[in-house]
Amino acid sequence: MPNPTAAMLVIGDEILSGRTRDANMHHLAGQLTEHGIDLKEVRVVSDDADAIVAAVKALSAAFDTVFTSGGIGPTHDDITADCIAAAFDDHIDVRADARALLQAHYDRNGQELNEARLRMARIPDTATLIENPVSIAPGFTVQNVHVMAGVPRVFEAMVASVLPTLTGGAPLLSETLRIDRGEGDIAGPLGVLATDFDDLSIGSYPFQKDGKYGANIVIRGQDAARIDAAMTRLKAEFSA
Amino acid sequence: MPNPTAAMLVIGDEILSGRTRDANMHHLAGQLTEHGIDLKEVRVVSDDADAIVAAVKALSAAFDTVFTSGGIGPTHDDITADCIAAAFDDHIDVRADARALLQAHYDRNGQELNEARLRMARIPDTATLIENPVSIAPGFTVQNVHVMAGVPRVFEAMVASVLPTLTGGAPLLSETLRIDRGEGDIAGPLGVLATDFDDLSIGSYPFQKDGKYGANIVIRGQDAARIDAAMTRLKAEFSA
Repeated sequence: MPNPTAAMLVIGDEILSGRTRDANMHHLAGQLTEHGIDLKEVRVVSDDADAIVAAVKALSAAFDTVFTSGGIGPTHDDITADCIAAAFDDHIDVRADARALLQAHYDRNGQELNEARLRMARIPDTATLIENPVSIAPGFTVQNVHVMAGVPRVFEAMVASVLPTLTGGAPLLSETLRIDRGEGDIAGPLGVLATDFDDLSIGSYPFQKDGKYGANIVIRGQDAARIDAAMTRLKAEFSA
Repeated sequence: MPNPTAAMLVIGDEILSGRTRDANMHHLAGQLTEHGIDLKEVRVVSDDADAIVAAVKALSAAFDTVFTSGGIGPTHDDITADCIAAAFDDHIDVRADARALLQAHYDRNGQELNEARLRMARIPDTATLIENPVSIAPGFTVQNVHVMAGVPRVFEAMVASVLPTLTGGAPLLSETLRIDRGEGDIAGPLGVLATDFDDLSIGSYPFQKDGKYGANIVIRGQDAARIDAAMTRLKAEFSA
């Protein structure tokens, strides 16, 4: 049975302007691979309601699960929650359960739950909350879309809250062989190997270091014995 | 006049599996911002022909310029050039001009231009070549899509070859103020500021460091005097 599929939607002008380098994509990709869920597509869009709504609809329809990152804070440019509600024709307002979490948190810290912070309790009617052990303001899930914060520590905590609730497939296994020869020298035999082991994914990732060419050959699949067999042939072919 | 828009398509299983952290997106984003071109969307898709063709068509239709990264090397998993041809109903084969570049390069290095390396001379009929001073094998442009290598050094060299040929708008200017208070404390006045300066983009990027909350407020626009005016008010509001 093929693994479940996933997509990620990163929301944020700060990535697209080059100001910030995204870290959440790399974290989620690694976690999903371990969990046996195939991340098939990532989109990064700006803080623009039409762009967010269109991307949520497209990804939610095309993949089993969608993760979003960013835009659920208290400031005027945090519009993700309202966009998710719009994408699913859901009603959205401050919800009692989320408000109670925030009230208790700010009471503990002697801070005021002001109008801005209350924006973080705006949750679509049909959503279930995602726990946020770092800064309390929750993420939420509507249908197959998990809506999470953009701050990496909070994003990672929310991924840890959501992942155990998802059914994964067989974890993707991989073995890597570094070959210190240019891809052009190895591509022919490598293509034959890929055809002979077409149940595996064999990728070639070239690099250039100190003026020399090389490639990391990564063999991925779910059957460790098959990966071993392919790796044995790869080594025999190229370790001469 | 609004700036020209751009999108980027990153092609590569290695990003989606979490094996490699993408670097090209961040580089391109910074370069385009300096050049006055607004990067509006990035998509990352796997080495899958249907996914690549669909993404190229969608992004090419929606934005002024598209940049792709990855999948134009000599190995069996390098399928980008053929996908670009398919997306534009263009014919593709080994082309004499690209072949001549490669032949001269490998002759100089005393290497053979074998069948695998010749794959890198497969260029759609209507394409113009993009110079690659690092490793010679060219990128290419079809209509509004610039097709470039995934290896960061080569990608960056190709971006440098292409950018001067594109008409940019006014460079996006920005000023940043770090405020060591939680977003919830500053969101109210910040929202009023954003409304009063609705010709600018005012973003709030929260962080958490040593257990304390803060936010970088970034004011972006094309008019330096307006940015200064907004920054002056921001400082007056929050430096008390």
